[in-house]
Amino acid sequence: MAVSEITQKLLDAKKAKGVSYAELEEVVGQDEVWIASVIFRQASADADQAAKLVEALGLPAEMAEPLTVPPLKGGLDPVIPTDPLIYRLYEIMQVFGMPVKDVIHEKFGDGIMSAIDFSIEVDKVEDPKGDRVQITMCGKFLPYKKW
Amino acid sequence: MAVSEITQKLLDAKKAKGVSYAELEEVVGQDEVWIASVIFRQASADADQAAKLVEALGLPAEMAEPLTVPPLKGGLDPVIPTDPLIYRLYEIMQVFGMPVKDVIHEKFGDGIMSAIDFSIEVDKVEDPKGDRVQITMCGKFLPYKKW
Amino acid sequence: MAVSEITQKLLDAKKAKGVSYAELEEVVGQDEVWIASVIFRQASADADQAAKLVEALGLPAEMAEPLTVPPLKGGLDPVIPTDPLIYRLYEIMQVFGMPVKDVIHEKFGDGIMSAIDFSIEVDKVEDPKGDRVQITMCGKFLPYKKW
Amino acid sequence: MAVSEITQKLLDAKKAKGVSYAELEEVVGQDEVWIASVIFRQASADADQAAKLVEALGLPAEMAEPLTVPPLKGGLDPVIPTDPLIYRLYEIMQVFGMPVKDVIHEKFGDGIMSAIDFSIEVDKVEDPKGDRVQITMCGKFLPYKKW
Amino acid sequence: MAVSEITQKLLDAKKAKGVSYAELEEVVGQDEVWIASVIFRQASADADQAAKLVEALGLPAEMAEPLTVPPLKGGLDPVIPTDPLIYRLYEIMQVFGMPVKDVIHEKFGDGIMSAIDFSIEVDKVEDPKGDRVQITMCGKFLPYKKW
Amino acid sequence: MAVSEITQKLLDAKKAKGVSYAELEEVVGQDEVWIASVIFRQASADADQAAKLVEALGLPAEMAEPLTVPPLKGGLDPVIPTDPLIYRLYEIMQVFGMPVKDVIHEKFGDGIMSAIDFSIEVDKVEDPKGDRVQITMCGKFLPYKKW
Amino acid sequence: MAVSEITQKLLDAKKAKGVSYAELEEVVGQDEVWIASVIFRQASADADQAAKLVEALGLPAEMAEPLTVPPLKGGLDPVIPTDPLIYRLYEIMQVFGMPVKDVIHEKFGDGIMSAIDFSIEVDKVEDPKGDRVQITMCGKFLPYKKW
Amino acid sequence: MAVSEITQKLLDAKKAKGVSYAELEEVVGQDEVWIASVIFRQASADADQAAKLVEALGLPAEMAEPLTVPPLKGGLDPVIPTDPLIYRLYEIMQVFGMPVKDVIHEKFGDGIMSAIDFSIEVDKVEDPKGDRVQITMCGKFLPYKKW
Amino acid sequence: MAVSEITQKLLDAKKAKGVSYAELEEVVGQDEVWIASVIFRQASADADQAAKLVEALGLPAEMAEPLTVPPLKGGLDPVIPTDPLIYRLYEIMQVFGMPVKDVIHEKFGDGIMSAIDFSIEVDKVEDPKGDRVQITMCGKFLPYKKW
Amino acid sequence: MAVSEITQKLLDAKKAKGVSYAELEEVVGQDEVWIASVIFRQASADADQAAKLVEALGLPAEMAEPLTVPPLKGGLDPVIPTDPLIYRLYEIMQVFGMPVKDVIHEKFGDGIMSAIDFSIEVDKVEDPKGDRVQITMCGKFLPYKKW
Repeated sequence: MAVSEITQKLLDAKKAKGVSYAELEEVVGQDEVWIASVIFRQASADADQAAKLVEALGLPAEMAEPLTVPPLKGGLDPVIPTDPLIYRLYEIMQVFGMPVKDVIHEKFGDGIMSAIDFSIEVDKVEDPKGDRVQITMCGKFLPYKKW
Repeated sequence: MAVSEITQKLLDAKKAKGVSYAELEEVVGQDEVWIASVIFRQASADADQAAKLVEALGLPAEMAEPLTVPPLKGGLDPVIPTDPLIYRLYEIMQVFGMPVKDVIHEKFGDGIMSAIDFSIEVDKVEDPKGDRVQITMCGKFLPYKKW
Repeated sequence: MAVSEITQKLLDAKKAKGVSYAELEEVVGQDEVWIASVIFRQASADADQAAKLVEALGLPAEMAEPLTVPPLKGGLDPVIPTDPLIYRLYEIMQVFGMPVKDVIHEKFGDGIMSAIDFSIEVDKVEDPKGDRVQITMCGKFLPYKKW
Repeated sequence: MAVSEITQKLLDAKKAKGVSYAELEEVVGQDEVWIASVIFRQASADADQAAKLVEALGLPAEMAEPLTVPPLKGGLDPVIPTDPLIYRLYEIMQVFGMPVKDVIHEKFGDGIMSAIDFSIEVDKVEDPKGDRVQITMCGKFLPYKKW
Repeated sequence: MAVSEITQKLLDAKKAKGVSYAELEEVVGQDEVWIASVIFRQASADADQAAKLVEALGLPAEMAEPLTVPPLKGGLDPVIPTDPLIYRLYEIMQVFGMPVKDVIHEKFGDGIMSAIDFSIEVDKVEDPKGDRVQITMCGKFLPYKKW
Repeated sequence: MAVSEITQKLLDAKKAKGVSYAELEEVVGQDEVWIASVIFRQASADADQAAKLVEALGLPAEMAEPLTVPPLKGGLDPVIPTDPLIYRLYEIMQVFGMPVKDVIHEKFGDGIMSAIDFSIEVDKVEDPKGDRVQITMCGKFLPYKKW
Repeated sequence: MAVSEITQKLLDAKKAKGVSYAELEEVVGQDEVWIASVIFRQASADADQAAKLVEALGLPAEMAEPLTVPPLKGGLDPVIPTDPLIYRLYEIMQVFGMPVKDVIHEKFGDGIMSAIDFSIEVDKVEDPKGDRVQITMCGKFLPYKKW
Repeated sequence: MAVSEITQKLLDAKKAKGVSYAELEEVVGQDEVWIASVIFRQASADADQAAKLVEALGLPAEMAEPLTVPPLKGGLDPVIPTDPLIYRLYEIMQVFGMPVKDVIHEKFGDGIMSAIDFSIEVDKVEDPKGDRVQITMCGKFLPYKKW
Repeated sequence: MAVSEITQKLLDAKKAKGVSYAELEEVVGQDEVWIASVIFRQASADADQAAKLVEALGLPAEMAEPLTVPPLKGGLDPVIPTDPLIYRLYEIMQVFGMPVKDVIHEKFGDGIMSAIDFSIEVDKVEDPKGDRVQITMCGKFLPYKKW
Repeated sequence: MAVSEITQKLLDAKKAKGVSYAELEEVVGQDEVWIASVIFRQASADADQAAKLVEALGLPAEMAEPLTVPPLKGGLDPVIPTDPLIYRLYEIMQVFGMPVKDVIHEKFGDGIMSAIDFSIEVDKVEDPKGDRVQITMCGKFLPYKKW
């Protein structure tokens, strides 16, 4: 994924300021993964959130407005990503996709977990045998409509 | 993904018996998603777990042994799956892959979340506006070795 | 898309009986496209709907139950279909996808049209210059959640 | 889909002017989705329509002429788009393509819905449980010629 | 393209009978390429044409009916065919596609040549330097509708 | 297909001059589709033809020489083109490729239609029910050599 | 490439008989690579050649006729073959394709080496440092026709 | 394949100088196809060869050094090339790959023809019925090692 | 990769006999990975090795002969494998391919590591922090020939 | 793989300085392949390592910092690489992937070799019959967790 020009500016400012996603979470009042999604142009902020974010990064106020436009989302290149961290998410889908599907259908019936009415969080779980990454995804169950 | 013959037999027995994954969790002593993974031949059980599982499904004891063999994993067809429930996991990777990567690197440094020393659970979160599917993934952080 | 064995049996019975989708709509009480989706194993019926459908096709009652299982959906082969009628739907997405996206965002904000809480109907619009096919899709707007 | 330079200028002007597609519909006398298609260079306007559009956007008159040239259409990248809104159109084709095909053949015989002698409209259907997006596609039925 | 069972039976009968496509053209009253398309299940015949075709091939009358069903068309495998004769059609599209597009637009305006209201014929053009294959395609020009 | 810089210059000049392919056919003494192929760098001209073409477009004489170099041909992107006009040529190959192959083999034996010793022409066939596009391809039959 | 049933029978008979391609070359009077191509159903023989081949392999005479039918050629799976011997031919095209193209154009002008009016032979070149495989391809130069 | 900047300079100089590959063969003392491979950055020269080549093309001496660096080889785009001359090499692999494999194994045993310890030459074979292109490839046979 | 019938028989016999690859290494006198390659039909044995292997697995002697035939190698499906263990080899190529290439060129010059005159071994390296898998590949350096 | 701007600067400096990877290994105190991985932006260094590396290459100190950022890894283009040296690693996976998988499972149970807690080294093994490239990969065995 080629990172867009605006994303690169935001990341550079974040680095120059030495501000973490956790600190941005404090300022903007939204989860850090969501804020990262705004920075990578995968989510759109409202005007107030965008203004706070841009200010926290020490950037001029006119950079806020583009962050409110619904972006063209996705776009990893190639379509099966090669970066090992991102690929593991693909692997999890390949290996656990069918079991998860079957368990969800048993618990909820025919339908899906929404990826729109959806949140995703990343936590560090400390562990003496090695810290663990916990990713919690929570999406509304959408039952298939019959018409 | 063409479901293998052995998986089909296990699913048929599970249906005939009317036993849920949650009930199998009780019997086998492992999480229901993991048990579904064994049934879909994406994970291998030990001899004792396999025996319990096969017995709980009312199947002959000799069906346990094949479940202990390390399987050839993955195999969704096509490689970007078309089933909407499974596709959403791909979409989440496409849309949130880069933000999640950046947050993990900030929290942990250069490395990945293991998909092997890893667990994945599915929960129903009741909500008056519509129940939610919660998927919790937890994998050991593996820092890149330098040599 | 290889049509599954059960779909083939249902289509054969429908042909032998000489019953149209419109007539099945009368019997089952759902739209004809949805009924076709059940027959092609792209949608799951409830027990009552499945029973009515199977009976209307003159098939044995035990064929109803499999139609209630959430299917593995999609699966056109190849992924860009070659059948001209189906390909036109792909072409419409290629040509009008971006304009439709921009109009939806302008009318609704950032989000999507659900393909789950969704209906699709096919109508014949008579026209002296040649009848027209009207496809009406109607899906709930799902705004992106911020968390 | 990389948006072309001319499209970007038109979109920027539309934003700067604060004019909506609905307002352009008034000015140009064509549907808003068709106008968006002209802006995204997926459809060509005639000289008069192009002049009105360019003027309504406050752009110089010489920008009208290129909008009358038949464009190279399509071009979403990758060929199975990752943007969730656009992907849903692909998913609808994957899941409902075969049922729709069968219903159309039953109603019309062997042939297709034209994607050329074709219109597509987007409407907001207000609904207390959440507004709905309605997409209405209407194309001439083209029966296969025998020769 | 795996040839379907019914196509194979028709081709075997054609061979056993020693009847050429030109002779079938006489019997059925349609062009030989169209008849070959019916045999390969790429076109559907009406009941009378199917009956004549099946009879001319010395096959039982009940084989006629399936030839009247609108087939799932296309399906060359792989999507860029490897058979040299068929590949040349792909190559012609690759090399001459853009020039042909530009000439058609100049002659007709924005639109396409229909592949549905369409005929394709194959002729042998005798030539002392080596006979030539002439393929004549003729499709209705469909101008893009504005709405 | 990204159009190369030289092609763009030729097309711009052609437009500025208001000269049609038919008029270029008069000047250069070759078919208009072939001339379009030279302009799109899919065919190479000899020095005299190139000089005439460049002069007719009002371009400097030194632009003729590059048109005599054998180009790297093809290059539609993606490999299955999305432009509806060009895609129809792909669809024709998908749907009618096998029937055409069988008819050619019956008429000529094992071999192919050359796409090199080959011509392709586009004609407008006037028709009260709508004008038709006629594409005539004529290539030498090349029988497979046995050695 | 799944080897077809008839090819497998021919290969089995060749092995059972213990006859080499060189010996078949003597019997049939054609090059051994061409004979292998007939056996793999990539080339068609005439009736006499097929009869001789089938007889030399000790097979019943009725197996000759299918070898005279023009086959559907190519079909390696996947399209970039994984077998190392065959892949090297792909690699040679990747690495030396452009240089070979440029040298051929310099020697012959714009055109191609025919792969139809074409022969390919395999020889062993003995060499004390290790024997060498020599593959000699010889195809008619086909200049691009101008029309 | 986008030709690299250095290749373009070398080709331009070769054209400006009016020197053929055959003449470069004289100067450099290596086969013309190999020299073309150096120019296209598919092979690396030693310092002396690079100096002679650069001098023969009338280019500054400092352009020699980059030609001695082992390049990243291959890179035709798309992976199945569309240029007809280069595609024929792919077609030869598709059609004759399996027969050639079987003949090589019969003559040499299990192993491959090296594409590294390898030469490829292009010759014109004059023929009254049309000159022929002869491509001679000669690679060391590498038997599979057992360990 | 669908495992072939003969491979499945060999694996079943190996399991029934309870014999390890290490024990087969003792009997056959070759490395265990090579023996596994013979069993998976990726390498061919000589008659003596095949006989010993088949006998050690308690299988009839006539099963030895097919193991001496050069197989069609490779064939993982899909081409980027989804099995996590095998995928890691792909990932290593993606991440470390360029660095390894540069180091090899620096040490050896322009050329490659042979994958034919090649061995690959797997060892367990015991480690209190967790045992390690060591894979040692050793292939002849093949310098590019100049001709 | 397009080499990034920073990588190109590092490679140019390395060449200008005439310093080998082995010498960088001395300076930085890490293996040469790992250092090459840092240069190709496939691995991240700590501040001290980056400073030493940049200094050894005679580059300004501010170039060190970017080398400490976790990069987006992988990215060979196309996904099955065409460079012969790198392709051989793909071929080894295709041919020996399944045998290696089976041997690892036999020695270690169900799990994988980590590609993160992992080292890879390249050695020259001198051999009178031709020097050999030895690649030693050593990764922690990760057993699949059951939960």
